[in-house]
Amino acid sequence: MERSGQARLIRIEDPSDPRIAEFTAMRDRDLAGRGDLFIAEGKVVLQALLDAEAGSRRFRIEKALILENRIDGLGNLLDRVDPGCPIYVAGRVVLDAAVGFAMHRGILAVGRHVPATSFTDFLSHLPEQALLVAACGISNHDNLGGIFRNAGVFGADGVVLDETCCDPLYRKAIRVSVGAALRVPFCRAGGIGELIASLSAHGFEVAGLSPRGTEPLSSYVPGKRLALLAGTEGEGLPAEIIERIKTLKIEQAPGMDSLNVATASGIALWHAAARMGRAI
Amino acid sequence: MERSGQARLIRIEDPSDPRIAEFTAMRDRDLAGRGDLFIAEGKVVLQALLDAEAGSRRFRIEKALILENRIDGLGNLLDRVDPGCPIYVAGRVVLDAAVGFAMHRGILAVGRHVPATSFTDFLSHLPEQALLVAACGISNHDNLGGIFRNAGVFGADGVVLDETCCDPLYRKAIRVSVGAALRVPFCRAGGIGELIASLSAHGFEVAGLSPRGTEPLSSYVPGKRLALLAGTEGEGLPAEIIERIKTLKIEQAPGMDSLNVATASGIALWHAAARMGRAI
Repeated sequence: MERSGQARLIRIEDPSDPRIAEFTAMRDRDLAGRGDLFIAEGKVVLQALLDAEAGSRRFRIEKALILENRIDGLGNLLDRVDPGCPIYVAGRVVLDAAVGFAMHRGILAVGRHVPATSFTDFLSHLPEQALLVAACGISNHDNLGGIFRNAGVFGADGVVLDETCCDPLYRKAIRVSVGAALRVPFCRAGGIGELIASLSAHGFEVAGLSPRGTEPLSSYVPGKRLALLAGTEGEGLPAEIIERIKTLKIEQAPGMDSLNVATASGIALWHAAARMGRAI
Repeated sequence: MERSGQARLIRIEDPSDPRIAEFTAMRDRDLAGRGDLFIAEGKVVLQALLDAEAGSRRFRIEKALILENRIDGLGNLLDRVDPGCPIYVAGRVVLDAAVGFAMHRGILAVGRHVPATSFTDFLSHLPEQALLVAACGISNHDNLGGIFRNAGVFGADGVVLDETCCDPLYRKAIRVSVGAALRVPFCRAGGIGELIASLSAHGFEVAGLSPRGTEPLSSYVPGKRLALLAGTEGEGLPAEIIERIKTLKIEQAPGMDSLNVATASGIALWHAAARMGRAI
C-alpha cells in the first residue's frame, strides 16, 4: 500500500532541473549568503526543521529533495510537510549528479530562516529570567554547532552572535548541533561592543569565559539574566573586552592548553543553569 | 647562517624512497594496526611528541619528514630530536606525491608508543588519589581526541580504553586532543566488564555518565579514586553495565537530546577534579 504522502512526490529525472537548482549550488557555496536560505540534511535535521516550522515562525521549509530509496525510511515524516511545499524525489544517479557525490545523505531540504526584525526586538521577547550564550568570532562550524547543542541541552533561551561568527545554519553546524540550531532561537548582532552594550541595556550580566578570567566559575552565582560570552579559540576574547566585563575562569590544571570553546560553553551552561534554579 | 640542526637533514628526492615508506602508507590506513607506530602531524603535535619522549619512556620518535619550506618555521625544535633519529626533508612535489595531496601539514613524524606491560601494571603505578576517564566503545576520533583534551586540561591521571575504542594515536585524534593523547597516560584494557573489575580491584569507584543516571552530578562527592566511565554516543553504556555500577546524570533540560560524550567528560572532570580538591 502506498503511503499517503507518496501521491504528492514529484519525480526529477534531470540533474540540471531548475526546480532543484538550490541543491546543485551546494557544492560551491552551500547557499551561504543567499538571503536566509539554508540546506537541511538528513532525517534528524528534517525532523527538527518540521518541529521548528510547527512551533515557531522562525523557519519554513521551501522544498525537499529525497533519494527514492530513503522515502520509506521517513515513515510519516513527509505527511508533516506543508501541502504547499514541493517534495522532489530522484534516483541515486540523478541525485549524485545534481548535488555532488557523497555530499548528501539522501534527504535534503531548503529551509528559510525568518530572523528577528532586530537585536533589540529579539532581546525584548526574552523571559524575565534568561540565560544566553553570546558567541563572538566563532569561525569553526564544529564549535558553533557544539555551542548550539549545549545551549539546547541546558535549556538556554537563545544564542546571540557577533557579526564575525560563522553561520549556524551551515549544513555542518546544523548537523553537529544535532538540530539545535533549528530549535534554539538565535540572533545576529553587530560588533562585539554593540552586542555587549545591547545585552547590558536589557539587564544582562555579560560574563566572559576566559582562561585569564578573574572569578572562578565554581563560585559564581548568576543573577536573573546572564549572557555567557564565548570567544574564538586561539585568540580568545579581545583584551579590551576582557578588561571591562566580568570574566569567569573555568578552573583547570596549571600549565595545560585551554579547553575547546564548545566544551567551555557546556561547562558554564551546566553550572549557570543549576545556580539559576532553572529546570535541568 | 645555517641553523645547527640543518646539517643533519637528509634530502629525499624520490617519493617511493623506502626510507619514508611509513609516510606513504598513510593514505590507506594511517599505520593503524602496525604495532605501536603512529603518525604525528604538525608543529604542535611534534612538540608534544618531543616533550613526551623527554618526559617519559612511553614515546619515541623514529623518524621525521619535513617539507623544506617548513624547516625555518620549526626554529630550534629539530635540535631536540634525538641524534639517532633521521630527519628527512623534501620539496612540495615529492612530499605530496609520497604522502598524498593535502594529507599533511608539511611536518610529519613516525612515533612509537611503548605501552604499559599490562592494565594491572598501569593501574598499580597510579598515585593514591587518582582520577581517570574510562572510555568504552568510543568509535569517533573527534570524540576520543576531545576526551583526551579534557583529561589533560583537568589534570586527570590517565585514560583507560576498552577494546572497542578507536585509536587515540590516530592522526585526527591526536590533533583534536591538541597533543594531549601524547601527554595523558593511557592504557587499553579488554572488554568493559574486565575493565570495570580491574578498576574496582584497584580501589576505583567506577561512575558511569548517562542521561539515565540515578545520581545528579552536581551533588556527587567522589572518594579518593574515581574512574568516570563514558560510553559511545547513540547507544551509550550497555544497560547491564548501568545496572551494576554507580551512574551519574549530568542535569539537563527535559526532553532534549543528550550531550556530546566529550563535552560530558569535560563537565564531569571539571566537577570531580574540584570536589576531589585537586590542583585546578
